[in-house]
Amino acid sequence: MSRRPGRRSGFSGSREEILRAARMKFAERGYDGTTVRGIAEEAKVDSALVHHFFKSKEGVFAAAMEDALRIGEVMPSLLADGLDGIGERLLRTFFTLWESQDKRETMVAVIRSATSHDEAVRMLRAFVSTEVIGRLAEAIERPNASMRAALVGSQLIGLIMIRYIVRVNPIASADTETLVAAYAPVIQRYLTAELDLPGGE
Amino acid sequence: MSRRPGRRSGFSGSREEILRAARMKFAERGYDGTTVRGIAEEAKVDSALVHHFFKSKEGVFAAAMEDALRIGEVMPSLLADGLDGIGERLLRTFFTLWESQDKRETMVAVIRSATSHDEAVRMLRAFVSTEVIGRLAEAIERPNASMRAALVGSQLIGLIMIRYIVRVNPIASADTETLVAAYAPVIQRYLTAELDLPGGE
Repeated sequence: MSRRPGRRSGFSGSREEILRAARMKFAERGYDGTTVRGIAEEAKVDSALVHHFFKSKEGVFAAAMEDALRIGEVMPSLLADGLDGIGERLLRTFFTLWESQDKRETMVAVIRSATSHDEAVRMLRAFVSTEVIGRLAEAIERPNASMRAALVGSQLIGLIMIRYIVRVNPIASADTETLVAAYAPVIQRYLTAELDLPGGE
Repeated sequence: MSRRPGRRSGFSGSREEILRAARMKFAERGYDGTTVRGIAEEAKVDSALVHHFFKSKEGVFAAAMEDALRIGEVMPSLLADGLDGIGERLLRTFFTLWESQDKRETMVAVIRSATSHDEAVRMLRAFVSTEVIGRLAEAIERPNASMRAALVGSQLIGLIMIRYIVRVNPIASADTETLVAAYAPVIQRYLTAELDLPGGE
């Protein structure tokens, strides 16, 4: 970090620059209103470079989504300590990511885009299914693992909607310790308690 | 219901017709892309009649939202039987409304519009705060009543996102009895259990 190269940052710096530009465009104009050319202009690169890294608008969106939601980055350490207290650890990880303003804005942009455009919904579905529910289900090694992980996903996406998107009080204005206390037992329950579903476990 | 009048249905029929047209337009074109004139054309009425009933596009959206979410209609009977088993009753009411295809489509359209447009977000926030959280909080007469009601709201909106909007499995394809069994203890907990929040209850 201490030495800045003479040329700004070459290709890999451009990749970050393109993702930053893409997040801004998706946030401002939604999925439909964003084009590869618009992203390239915002990033001050040639459109061909966007195609080189991401192939298509869909590819840029998928990368921006992955970058915004940061699941791949946090999941291994989250799961490394086993299932005791995982509800609380998961929520603390969640808030560490999303209370930081620029990450939150990106995440809100991704979800707004994804709820208003079918192609983006499809990508968010694939991402949540594989990266969130798939990884979590694999890690917990419990009966009904996919259902458990999906229940957690449904509570987290609801928390995002209420706190960051629709911004309903008192959850929008609550401090994170209050929210960890309120949600941790439920997340823990979904992941590890007896669920007593019809058909048994 | 047995006698149909010779003239279709006059003003009050037109009101329903306008709401039906508005739901279709908001679903197809989102909040931004919908105009009073477009709604009037779809409903085959004069724009002045839309203004007469609803004053503005905002007014039509608010009425369509209320009509779609049906909270005012179901809340009194839901609360009439007290808090024992309210988690399960609330979920059964929820599924009775939203497993019916046309109500679900309207609700999805409202939430999609509301997540992608600031003015619509503001209206959804006011609606959820007053009609859902306000009414529920008033009824439960517990410490932290607003927080409890908001926690329930966050789980229900997350369930809507996962099952009906992003459509993630296994929740999207689960039968409603499985989902009632999975969610009822959590809804019940949010409404009536000791929450143990920092600062106490």
